[in-house]
Amino acid sequence: MTSKVHRIALFGAGRIGQVHAANIAAHPRTEIALVVDPFGDAGAALAARLGVPLVDADAAFADDTIDAIVICSATETHADLIERGLTSGRAVFCEKPIDLSLARVEALLDSVADCDAPLLVAFNRRFDPAVAALEAGIRAGDIGDVELVTVMSKDPAPPTLAYLEGSGGLFRDMTIHDLDIARFLLGEEPTSVVATAAAITSPDIRAAGDFDTACITLQCASGRMAVITNSRRAAFGYDQRMEAHGSLGTLRTENVPASTLVLERADGVRRENPMHFFIERYADAYRLEWAHFVEVLDGTVPPRATGEDGRLALVLAEAAYASLKGGRRVAVP
Amino acid sequence: MTSKVHRIALFGAGRIGQVHAANIAAHPRTEIALVVDPFGDAGAALAARLGVPLVDADAAFADDTIDAIVICSATETHADLIERGLTSGRAVFCEKPIDLSLARVEALLDSVADCDAPLLVAFNRRFDPAVAALEAGIRAGDIGDVELVTVMSKDPAPPTLAYLEGSGGLFRDMTIHDLDIARFLLGEEPTSVVATAAAITSPDIRAAGDFDTACITLQCASGRMAVITNSRRAAFGYDQRMEAHGSLGTLRTENVPASTLVLERADGVRRENPMHFFIERYADAYRLEWAHFVEVLDGTVPPRATGEDGRLALVLAEAAYASLKGGRRVAVP
Amino acid sequence: MTSKVHRIALFGAGRIGQVHAANIAAHPRTEIALVVDPFGDAGAALAARLGVPLVDADAAFADDTIDAIVICSATETHADLIERGLTSGRAVFCEKPIDLSLARVEALLDSVADCDAPLLVAFNRRFDPAVAALEAGIRAGDIGDVELVTVMSKDPAPPTLAYLEGSGGLFRDMTIHDLDIARFLLGEEPTSVVATAAAITSPDIRAAGDFDTACITLQCASGRMAVITNSRRAAFGYDQRMEAHGSLGTLRTENVPASTLVLERADGVRRENPMHFFIERYADAYRLEWAHFVEVLDGTVPPRATGEDGRLALVLAEAAYASLKGGRRVAVP
Amino acid sequence: MTSKVHRIALFGAGRIGQVHAANIAAHPRTEIALVVDPFGDAGAALAARLGVPLVDADAAFADDTIDAIVICSATETHADLIERGLTSGRAVFCEKPIDLSLARVEALLDSVADCDAPLLVAFNRRFDPAVAALEAGIRAGDIGDVELVTVMSKDPAPPTLAYLEGSGGLFRDMTIHDLDIARFLLGEEPTSVVATAAAITSPDIRAAGDFDTACITLQCASGRMAVITNSRRAAFGYDQRMEAHGSLGTLRTENVPASTLVLERADGVRRENPMHFFIERYADAYRLEWAHFVEVLDGTVPPRATGEDGRLALVLAEAAYASLKGGRRVAVP
Repeated sequence: MTSKVHRIALFGAGRIGQVHAANIAAHPRTEIALVVDPFGDAGAALAARLGVPLVDADAAFADDTIDAIVICSATETHADLIERGLTSGRAVFCEKPIDLSLARVEALLDSVADCDAPLLVAFNRRFDPAVAALEAGIRAGDIGDVELVTVMSKDPAPPTLAYLEGSGGLFRDMTIHDLDIARFLLGEEPTSVVATAAAITSPDIRAAGDFDTACITLQCASGRMAVITNSRRAAFGYDQRMEAHGSLGTLRTENVPASTLVLERADGVRRENPMHFFIERYADAYRLEWAHFVEVLDGTVPPRATGEDGRLALVLAEAAYASLKGGRRVAVP
Repeated sequence: MTSKVHRIALFGAGRIGQVHAANIAAHPRTEIALVVDPFGDAGAALAARLGVPLVDADAAFADDTIDAIVICSATETHADLIERGLTSGRAVFCEKPIDLSLARVEALLDSVADCDAPLLVAFNRRFDPAVAALEAGIRAGDIGDVELVTVMSKDPAPPTLAYLEGSGGLFRDMTIHDLDIARFLLGEEPTSVVATAAAITSPDIRAAGDFDTACITLQCASGRMAVITNSRRAAFGYDQRMEAHGSLGTLRTENVPASTLVLERADGVRRENPMHFFIERYADAYRLEWAHFVEVLDGTVPPRATGEDGRLALVLAEAAYASLKGGRRVAVP
Repeated sequence: MTSKVHRIALFGAGRIGQVHAANIAAHPRTEIALVVDPFGDAGAALAARLGVPLVDADAAFADDTIDAIVICSATETHADLIERGLTSGRAVFCEKPIDLSLARVEALLDSVADCDAPLLVAFNRRFDPAVAALEAGIRAGDIGDVELVTVMSKDPAPPTLAYLEGSGGLFRDMTIHDLDIARFLLGEEPTSVVATAAAITSPDIRAAGDFDTACITLQCASGRMAVITNSRRAAFGYDQRMEAHGSLGTLRTENVPASTLVLERADGVRRENPMHFFIERYADAYRLEWAHFVEVLDGTVPPRATGEDGRLALVLAEAAYASLKGGRRVAVP
Repeated sequence: MTSKVHRIALFGAGRIGQVHAANIAAHPRTEIALVVDPFGDAGAALAARLGVPLVDADAAFADDTIDAIVICSATETHADLIERGLTSGRAVFCEKPIDLSLARVEALLDSVADCDAPLLVAFNRRFDPAVAALEAGIRAGDIGDVELVTVMSKDPAPPTLAYLEGSGGLFRDMTIHDLDIARFLLGEEPTSVVATAAAITSPDIRAAGDFDTACITLQCASGRMAVITNSRRAAFGYDQRMEAHGSLGTLRTENVPASTLVLERADGVRRENPMHFFIERYADAYRLEWAHFVEVLDGTVPPRATGEDGRLALVLAEAAYASLKGGRRVAVP
């Protein structure tokens, strides 16, 4: 097995950038070579901590020792960076989404169709040990034919209005993870979508024309279906549960408490809350996602989530919006 | 408190009739006076076991000592028996549904509108200790404002084709329980319905034009919503879980295993399956439902599920069919 | 199969007598013929409710129609009633203990050794569905050879001092149930006992010379052992958990909550407390225990817990006291 | 806050040495400066992987840049290394035990009594998030006065005979962790010990004069007690559960499954096994233990487990052996 250490250029030193930076640094086969982040102090601080230079994007792409780029920068930069990375022969690891515009995503995928370098769209949940084991169980036949998938997905609290404005809206920002998981578990492409949504948790979200509570049902040609339930607010923490129901039974995952501590008193039996949000809940997923990308860099496996996966999740999000608008079931193009 | 023993005429000696018969007999304040069941041997056997006469309907209604009737007979007899019972001044306990025809239900409710005798439509799940505690928790403000209700409801196995033919179809036969629970927990009437369904589990169900797998989403004027997920088949037993999600948190019920036994071995940690079906799972609910009806007979409380509740659940089932047919969200009349 | 209805004389109309009375009355093959209870109003009230006479013991034994006696009266009456019952040819169902004096128990068992009528010593926990399934799992080989049994057994709150005075002390009154379960699950007689105990929960218990917190370890000739942990106080309810650890794994039971309701809020994930005490927790066990006794009455099975089982549990309790007193491991005679 | 990077000499490159090496390397404030391991290839391999020299002990102590030593070498080297470390002014992190001989431990602690450098005896379980939260809950008064502590502790499989020979026996090798936890949770020193033990799992262990199954009960002057249950074999994985029972309720920890995946089928509801052994189960504990040691190095907190804690756990293990031998309760000196 190769012992090459892959040199990584990290774009974006925000919250998720720092998560990936730690995993890249901890992996014996990868090292961060440079950081790119034109905004504020986070980039400089991270670069200093890692002992690597903070440079601009041009300098990063000019560095011939860079094997791969990791894109954690603002959403509107993703498509361009993917294009520059792939066309310059670097492997690309990109946080979702590729872009909020389906047209832009499709144009990008066309333009890089002939590139040899691999693109991993970082749908982190696919790498969570419980979710991965659930999917492996389905493929192993543990529940026979899949008939119904349910995804319960609630954030602990709504994001800031500033965040919401650039987010693309509930379906493109939050539900897109669940749409990807639904496709991942169904094992068949959905052919129609029907959505119900509301802004209940705050007047601000309603004023912004966005939603915070939703149910999206997907159906495939075979009849099998997936049900996604979303909320931007779960007072007890990050609610992330998935179920696949099949002819022989059900596979499902439960929330992960901070610890197994139980307190039993006259007023009830109390356990700890689920881990608060994605940084804690999916810490293992991020680590395993990076280990997978190293295998992609080694050329031993193809990316487990591709640009096409990113596009198809966005197609479903657009169909969900069309369903809401028209009050009807919408065929997936 | 009154110590009157209420005398009951039981119509129908089938599976559910026998459940109610045992509870009526075990209650210190009620006794079965007679059994009516014109079909087969079940009526005679039950009457003999109880030591009461097996008579026909006319004889039952002619008996002035009868205080109340319990209707567990075939669906098509329900509306007429309700009418005869209420107009003759007897309290009526009727298994769901009132009738498979919404027009018939509405005509009946009109015709008995002036009757003083009470009618309990036996939506048994409302009386399950966990479900009742969930609803009480909502009313007590434990989770703040309700935003989202989910009902997972799967039968262990499809019924016979003969049963399906007279059932009225998935929504009128099975989902109707879930529609009632959704209304019960939402605390606000749904104003629109959208449904997705398929026949997946057997070619027979598909051939019969019925469905076995479905997702129905209800929405209220406030935006709050309920999601019902159904299947006619859950290989591990009766899957009955309800959740209410609100501004302060979530209340939910889990399946009830046959016992708390756990077997831990090298091949995993195994617990017992959920109770197999409604007779076992809702044994306590049936008992408590009867205790409630005795209070109704005493005149101390109104029925906790009325003819109007029966009608509204059927209205939602009809709207779900209309949604399926039209491929669109349907307003509830 | 016989359809004989067995006629029962019930001795003792207190709390546990009323539990058995309800089960006897609800069983299609048994009826209470008369009640004996010389103290207070409970006997008269129960007899009136059942519509049977309240008589004295002599009258009860003089009634030739009585098939069996159920002994729920004060502990000091048990041995005499067992003797009168068995020597007069009645089957006997006796609440534990047979007597607080081992000498008296042994004398009794000698005196009735030649009686044909069966004696069931009502160790109720053996009939609990989870415990029975645990024991059946052991016998089926699910965990291979049993190596270690643990019994966690805590009452919700200490009894009154008046009760304690006549109780025989912690080991003879409370631990005796756990000693029986340990024997039941070990499948081999213990040959030595070592005990640790203290009075912690109240000065009254200490003043009375009794204990409220204890650990008793039993060991068999093969080396396998059982550990019993007791407390007279568990603020959250009745704590009743059993484990058997063997060469292939572990079988264990958990506490049974009042319902499966879960409340998830910012301050934790809360479930309902275990059922409060034995009347609720072992309701099924009492019902199944009675169903077993009916089979004993029919002559189709031998009693699942005998006078000898009662004696052996008391022998272990005495050994535990001897261990405490001598500060050493005590051989079981 | 200081940003000094502490330089560490690692003694022992075996299994646990590699765990600590990874945590030391991953911590931003510590680095491994050199490795000492005279046996086999593990030391050279680890040193090469870390890019640091492999030296002998004399060279390590001669290096003035070393701030602290981490002792993961063979048990018989521990006491000498602690002494050399502390007397040369280095902080010492030492895997348990200090030594298998109580006399040697006491001589060592006397000889280093005047050293200023801190010694952390690495009782890893104290740092597990669930155990730490349990202990914090006790100190916060969540369960009132502690009355009873139980520690269930079973290894997945017996170690090799070669390991057993140098282990000091069950109580000094395995139970010592549980004795430490019992002391940690009781909050009062035990004054007596009584033990029961057997060799059941294999003839080899019996032949070696060692035990594999045991129950040890500790009691304090106040009467409160702790019960430890041990086995060298749990076919389903590492069984590590702790409970503290107090006047207001119970705090307890459960086993941690590999993931929350649940498979529900006709043959039962199956979850994943507990994490297999200490490397997996206590991965977080080892990481947090190291973070604690960095605070000790910074001088901001005293060691959370000291040489005296190591001594007292060994005193209890010796008392347990004395109890077994004498068949009696043994006072703790």
